[in-house]
Amino acid sequence: MLPAAILLSLACGAAHADEGMWMPSQLPQLSKQLKAAGFKGNPADLADLTRYPMSAVVSLGGCTASFVSPQGLVVTNHHCALGAIQLNSTAERNLIEDGFNAATMADEPSAGPAARIWVTVGFDSVTDRILADAKGKTGRAYFDAVDAAKKVAVAACEQDAGHRCSVADMYYGREFYLIKQFEVRDVRLVYAPPRSIGNYGDEIDNFMWPRHTGDFSFYRAYVGKDGKPAAYSKDNVPYAPPAHLTVSTAPVKAGDFAMVAGYPGTTFRHRTASEFANQIDWLLPTRVEVVGGLIDTIQAATKGDKAKEVLYASTVAGQKNTLKRAQGELDGLRRSDAVRVRREDEAAMLAWLAKQPNAAALQADIRAMQAQLDAAQASRERDFILPFLRPGLLGQAIVLQRLALERGKPDAQRESGYQQRDEATIEGGLKQLQRRYDPEVEKATLLFALDRYFALPAAQRVPEFDAVFGKDKAMAAAMLNTLYIETKLGDEANRLALMKADPKAVAASADPMMKAAAVLQPALLRMEDEAKQRSGELLRLRPAYMQALIGYRNSQGKAVYPDANSTLRVSYGKISPLSPRDGMDYRPLTTVAGIVEKNTGVEPFDAPKPLLEAIAKGDFGSTIDPTLKTQTVDFMTNLDTTGGNSGSPVLDANGKLIGLNFDSNWEAVSASWMFDPRYKRAIHVDMRYLRWLLAKVYPAPQLLKEMNLSAE
Amino acid sequence: MLPAAILLSLACGAAHADEGMWMPSQLPQLSKQLKAAGFKGNPADLADLTRYPMSAVVSLGGCTASFVSPQGLVVTNHHCALGAIQLNSTAERNLIEDGFNAATMADEPSAGPAARIWVTVGFDSVTDRILADAKGKTGRAYFDAVDAAKKVAVAACEQDAGHRCSVADMYYGREFYLIKQFEVRDVRLVYAPPRSIGNYGDEIDNFMWPRHTGDFSFYRAYVGKDGKPAAYSKDNVPYAPPAHLTVSTAPVKAGDFAMVAGYPGTTFRHRTASEFANQIDWLLPTRVEVVGGLIDTIQAATKGDKAKEVLYASTVAGQKNTLKRAQGELDGLRRSDAVRVRREDEAAMLAWLAKQPNAAALQADIRAMQAQLDAAQASRERDFILPFLRPGLLGQAIVLQRLALERGKPDAQRESGYQQRDEATIEGGLKQLQRRYDPEVEKATLLFALDRYFALPAAQRVPEFDAVFGKDKAMAAAMLNTLYIETKLGDEANRLALMKADPKAVAASADPMMKAAAVLQPALLRMEDEAKQRSGELLRLRPAYMQALIGYRNSQGKAVYPDANSTLRVSYGKISPLSPRDGMDYRPLTTVAGIVEKNTGVEPFDAPKPLLEAIAKGDFGSTIDPTLKTQTVDFMTNLDTTGGNSGSPVLDANGKLIGLNFDSNWEAVSASWMFDPRYKRAIHVDMRYLRWLLAKVYPAPQLLKEMNLSAE
Repeated sequence: MLPAAILLSLACGAAHADEGMWMPSQLPQLSKQLKAAGFKGNPADLADLTRYPMSAVVSLGGCTASFVSPQGLVVTNHHCALGAIQLNSTAERNLIEDGFNAATMADEPSAGPAARIWVTVGFDSVTDRILADAKGKTGRAYFDAVDAAKKVAVAACEQDAGHRCSVADMYYGREFYLIKQFEVRDVRLVYAPPRSIGNYGDEIDNFMWPRHTGDFSFYRAYVGKDGKPAAYSKDNVPYAPPAHLTVSTAPVKAGDFAMVAGYPGTTFRHRTASEFANQIDWLLPTRVEVVGGLIDTIQAATKGDKAKEVLYASTVAGQKNTLKRAQGELDGLRRSDAVRVRREDEAAMLAWLAKQPNAAALQADIRAMQAQLDAAQASRERDFILPFLRPGLLGQAIVLQRLALERGKPDAQRESGYQQRDEATIEGGLKQLQRRYDPEVEKATLLFALDRYFALPAAQRVPEFDAVFGKDKAMAAAMLNTLYIETKLGDEANRLALMKADPKAVAASADPMMKAAAVLQPALLRMEDEAKQRSGELLRLRPAYMQALIGYRNSQGKAVYPDANSTLRVSYGKISPLSPRDGMDYRPLTTVAGIVEKNTGVEPFDAPKPLLEAIAKGDFGSTIDPTLKTQTVDFMTNLDTTGGNSGSPVLDANGKLIGLNFDSNWEAVSASWMFDPRYKRAIHVDMRYLRWLLAKVYPAPQLLKEMNLSAE
Repeated sequence: MLPAAILLSLACGAAHADEGMWMPSQLPQLSKQLKAAGFKGNPADLADLTRYPMSAVVSLGGCTASFVSPQGLVVTNHHCALGAIQLNSTAERNLIEDGFNAATMADEPSAGPAARIWVTVGFDSVTDRILADAKGKTGRAYFDAVDAAKKVAVAACEQDAGHRCSVADMYYGREFYLIKQFEVRDVRLVYAPPRSIGNYGDEIDNFMWPRHTGDFSFYRAYVGKDGKPAAYSKDNVPYAPPAHLTVSTAPVKAGDFAMVAGYPGTTFRHRTASEFANQIDWLLPTRVEVVGGLIDTIQAATKGDKAKEVLYASTVAGQKNTLKRAQGELDGLRRSDAVRVRREDEAAMLAWLAKQPNAAALQADIRAMQAQLDAAQASRERDFILPFLRPGLLGQAIVLQRLALERGKPDAQRESGYQQRDEATIEGGLKQLQRRYDPEVEKATLLFALDRYFALPAAQRVPEFDAVFGKDKAMAAAMLNTLYIETKLGDEANRLALMKADPKAVAASADPMMKAAAVLQPALLRMEDEAKQRSGELLRLRPAYMQALIGYRNSQGKAVYPDANSTLRVSYGKISPLSPRDGMDYRPLTTVAGIVEKNTGVEPFDAPKPLLEAIAKGDFGSTIDPTLKTQTVDFMTNLDTTGGNSGSPVLDANGKLIGLNFDSNWEAVSASWMFDPRYKRAIHVDMRYLRWLLAKVYPAPQLLKEMNLSAE
């Protein structure tokens, strides 16, 4: 953590001009700020989802993309199209390694039956409708009333065939919007660079700057001849989008205005000071400690046994990734002194609220909300460790018992995750375990987690867990030995049989692992219900907190964006350098010189020969940077992004496409909780690099022509 | 290597204004350049070794230092004074960890009987005297004549008691200078910061920027009451130096003029194009390959055996360091395209020479020199691998045989390294082997090296080595087994006995290892003689090459400095940022914020509590940077330095002390061969950081007062 003396001399993160994932509908209010930042268009146009540029910005589900031609050409990240590229690869023709370039539309293969492009066509406030029936209710009943109203709204909206609808919760239950999306179901692969361009640097450069990745690919949207969404068919025709982005041919440089539109996933910026403190002072350090210990436990239990090491390699890799993320987030939030900053901000808000007329009702709700959060924190040790007590085989026994319970209900009433449509996924998990399970290693991980469980205060112990695992570690070791020796669930056929068996027979199974799961089930159901009660209360009470926050910010002349929730958002800012630490600066643009510097010839730094030759030749044509006198590759902005923004178009002051967002810098891992303008940057492919590759390196003149771009 | 297109757009390294380790006597010639660079003093003053500032710059032998008070106070690097700090540490009082601050002069302990401070008082050309007797001779005779003339000159000079004299060879045999130094023999420790300041970052930050190390300490020079050098005595008095440096109290910033004076060790800048090619295309890659293979061999041979791992830990660490340096030097020279740059430069020089009148004699000498270099390269594979065939125990048998041979001569005629004064060192080596030797591991390393030896063309094989190691690997394995089973030399007492035994008995020893060494000895003596013949010829012939180079440079209006050889040199340039790679910039000044950022509390990033508290307090007083508004720590210049420059004073445009040189950046590891202005930087402690530490953190007001500095 930086000392106070230094922190005070730096800008505070809480209210910086470049922070904000704005709903397009909010942008007209921000007209003055947008103009001041350099935007040259009409901010009102940005609010209209049926017009340029917003109608060109689409969701792929987890990624963002945009239309760039009247024939439904779509550009997104290489890593967003990777599944489709892999799907079309064969032993003879490895499209991941070699890239792909469809000579004509007839050569564009399907991106797969599950591929979708969603074009947002409607975004309407439905708050009153959603909350009408919930008013006066509390807890679980409040939650269920909101849920039911959402389902009614979605069903009505989806009467319009070819559309997918959803209700988005903005400001934590304060406002609800009905989002309507045109659903393209025939998506085809058009162009992908080789992996050694599209994923140059891979995991080593992931989150890193300076970056030299050409992370882009092209899709095309197809619809039936009637213009309606249709599954893949040779008879389908390219979709004519409501608008498509114009690719800029002007250079970009540090300080230029930039704007990103996309579908960011989840942020926690407006959580309370107590939630910040819980995350930073307890949850993240605990995660670092426990996940670190779990990794050590698995490695000790598999050491020297190649077969076991292979069984757990993927689990260990996943946990290491979790650990790295948690440590990065923790370091970042501490560096930003986030607990203190958020605490002081909240205290100021509450002080302001106390001076407002009619504050009492809001204050009462905020107190009630805080009581719910306090109650949740009181059992945090228990709630954190219990998921570690249902690993691998035991975890599947628990799933099988729950599935048996749910199978006794009509499908619509089954718990989400246990409906008929989920059964294929469950079956896949039951089969996959065979490649990821060893009884000795699983016992070791259970004993590791039980150490922490047994240390819980008596009031937090769960009788059903005590019944299964015993009272202390010695008992647990003995009971686990018996459990894992006697169970027949390690046999895949037995697990699969239990999936289909009569629910009552499953509940009464004599297999000791299934019996253990049956014992645990009431506890798990009870805690699940408690969590839903709490969610309902928070859904009911948080709007008071948000109303106070919005009022307080408005009193300072500032608008408030809702935390990200995978809906269309816009952030504006500028192309921006970064000083990641004392004595170092990152320039905001990288050049092809860096590709050569990093190149070792060994994956992931194995730039393809045609690229290296083209760099050496230095023929950069119309895409050369006029100041740097060479070809740029990636650039960096201070735009506010998060996971889900991958593939998002980056626009210039005139709304023209200058880049594709594809990553953040490591210093910004903590930005899901706090936007610190000193460290938050977004990383983009420069469209000039894309244009140069298409013009000179892996030529696709037909695409340049389709986008009205020069091939010189 | 960067592609040509990019290289051409960058400045070429060969003739940059900031390159150069100038003899002080050359500086008046560079008057115009010095003024243009911003120097405000009189360049002629810099040439006078008896005046400010040169008379204040002293050698510690391997390090540089400078006087900073009229009472003989000397400032140098912490790492240069580390031996003295360690010597004065006890179990109760760890001066390395805690630092040291002598309250009064009476509290200043001795830096040890071997500590010296050498003040250069004479620097006179003696070329004619040195070469008088060598003229007309060739090869070994030329070498011996020069050597004898040097000894005569040194002996005459050292008639002046209290002085050490030496003859320095400038421009590879072209000019010789008699250097006379006043030898201070009573050196005392005055002040050292704690390790966690003086060596903050240690090996991890070594060669790295941004840097945050307070690498400084203070000594004091003492002499007898008569002002003459004397060994340590309570009666000695502080030495009154001919001059002392004034510490600057002005801030420094990027672009400011800077100048460093010191005793740089060795550079190879004026080696021929063929020597550059040999270094970069053959020697360094071969070293990387062979040393890498040797490390693998030792690790495979010790794996799983803790005792053997410990025996070879220091050997492996040393070889890893060699490997890292070689790889860094290779990467740097390739990045600078040094082979091509030097080849083109030499070709231009030879073309120029061909057009000069009377070029024939020089051309003939240059051709003869090139023939010597070619001959040396013809046996380079052999000459590289043979040293790997004399490891550990076998190596000591070879030393014992050679010592026996030399002991048969009068001491003065013995080969250097085998004289009476060297015997303690040899004995130490014989004893130390016990902690660094295992017969199985030594056999493995021999077999590894023999692989390469057996691959030599027949003409390069050495009959004596064939006799000892056999004709191929199978024979070698069998012969080595016998050798290491039967030898009794593994016993320390036997080795030590052979050191003192009758030389004839040693030569006739029946121990198979001693017999092997006896067989090898004639070959080693023969090759040693060949090498000396070649050295003599190169000493005779290289001056022609240097004369051509100097003439060619002069024709372009440029001066030429001699390659570094541990004599007093000056480099001038400026405080300078660095772009180490695409998209990154290093700022030239670091601040205390970086200490806090790096601090983990774990060595080597364990800044002491008083420092962290002082940083948090932010009371930087008169040493605060007026622009950065905080305390600076280190700064970076583009000055031309190399090993030996540690502790060198860095002076500003007015000749005032602004920093202490202590390291180079990693990108400049290759600068001993080529100065590339894009990458060569030198790293210094900012005197403002030193002043702040002495004023506010580990106060030494008595020293500030002695240096005429404020304690605020």
